[in-house]
Amino acid sequence: MTSSSCGHMTTSQINKSGHVELSVPRGKMSTNMAPTAVLILFVVLLAFPCNSHKIPPHEDVARVARFVANQCDWASMATISTHDPIKGQPFSNAFSVSDGPVGYGSGVPYMYLTLMEISVQDLQVNPQASLSMSLAQTDFCKNESYDPQSPLCAHIIFSGTVVEVNGTEAVTAKKALFGRHPEMADWPSDHNWFFAKMNITQVWVLDYFGGIKTVTPEDYFKATPYKSFHSFLFSG
Amino acid sequence: MTSSSCGHMTTSQINKSGHVELSVPRGKMSTNMAPTAVLILFVVLLAFPCNSHKIPPHEDVARVARFVANQCDWASMATISTHDPIKGQPFSNAFSVSDGPVGYGSGVPYMYLTLMEISVQDLQVNPQASLSMSLAQTDFCKNESYDPQSPLCAHIIFSGTVVEVNGTEAVTAKKALFGRHPEMADWPSDHNWFFAKMNITQVWVLDYFGGIKTVTPEDYFKATPYKSFHSFLFSG
Repeated sequence: MTSSSCGHMTTSQINKSGHVELSVPRGKMSTNMAPTAVLILFVVLLAFPCNSHKIPPHEDVARVARFVANQCDWASMATISTHDPIKGQPFSNAFSVSDGPVGYGSGVPYMYLTLMEISVQDLQVNPQASLSMSLAQTDFCKNESYDPQSPLCAHIIFSGTVVEVNGTEAVTAKKALFGRHPEMADWPSDHNWFFAKMNITQVWVLDYFGGIKTVTPEDYFKATPYKSFHSFLFSG
Repeated sequence: MTSSSCGHMTTSQINKSGHVELSVPRGKMSTNMAPTAVLILFVVLLAFPCNSHKIPPHEDVARVARFVANQCDWASMATISTHDPIKGQPFSNAFSVSDGPVGYGSGVPYMYLTLMEISVQDLQVNPQASLSMSLAQTDFCKNESYDPQSPLCAHIIFSGTVVEVNGTEAVTAKKALFGRHPEMADWPSDHNWFFAKMNITQVWVLDYFGGIKTVTPEDYFKATPYKSFHSFLFSG
């Protein structure tokens, strides 16, 4: 399976989950047909190269939330500060996040943290936090001429607690983070980095006019942010 | 005064504060000299078109803070939530900000707010807030291949209170905001928008290795984020 520039389509097999299978049994295709089929496939891929990266309709709120969480490489984290002179006050800070490769996110925002970081020190006292991500971080809002504060420039907010992950989940977190943030592999080992995630208790979504909407963690994790190639071809 | 593509240089007068004055009294220049002078001026402008938009050296912490504050169009605001089920917990949200035109910022982060917004409702109960801005919001970190969480991808955090501004300061805020966020002029009037700013009590800067640094509001407002054309020409 080789990724295209969209990071989620393949030329050998379009969709592993079985929506479109273009495999041809060996010896069943004439030598003239094979290049034609490949050509047709490339034309289709060129025509709809990044369909799966279109934002879902705004009424599919959970899907929009998953889409934004997967598109963004970093988040702003709010904590309650434990540092003078702002002890007890809110504190905002930027952190790299990843829920997996673009197009294949799990929805879980993983982070790579060190206790040397002041927001992480806040989390040691009170793990309650909030992560916000906005499509203003991508080219989407600029391309669509949406102001960063416009609800059309979709942004999401997670409420929950930030917890360390270990064992097999640390392996998952490492794969998700180092895949999208390769520089992390070289960060100084004496900083005692550890993997963490936000345990989401509530998802807030601003993706259209009419005020903020909420999504339960259950609906958020059930949602499919990217339209399959099959459904795109047959639903227009 | 006409802006160049950098938004801060002029061809008629380079620097209003008097660093470089290229005005020529009428009738004092021969018809042959005028095109030559204009040509030289254009060559200089083409050679150093965006010098003023270079990030200041990391050790000039206050200048870096002013630079980031002026380059970013939006900020993440942390508040203490007043909303169930996260009452008392930190809450992060995205807001458009402006301290003035790019290249001419005052350092004051102005915002255009409505009480219909849930973070603004939080501020009514507790105006203490934190605003974070990162060069990850611009092309800088991508172009330099800096991870969003790297301290080299400079980010700043303001602590303080968010207060409404009125009178002449509201006029200043409107000019700063509507200049960089023209869409705001058309936002629905029944939302009762008002102008606000963060009264900064502390500035936190992450712009290099070695941990977070702090800047007093006094040093922050005294700093000059952009190198003048004059000092660039004569200091190399």
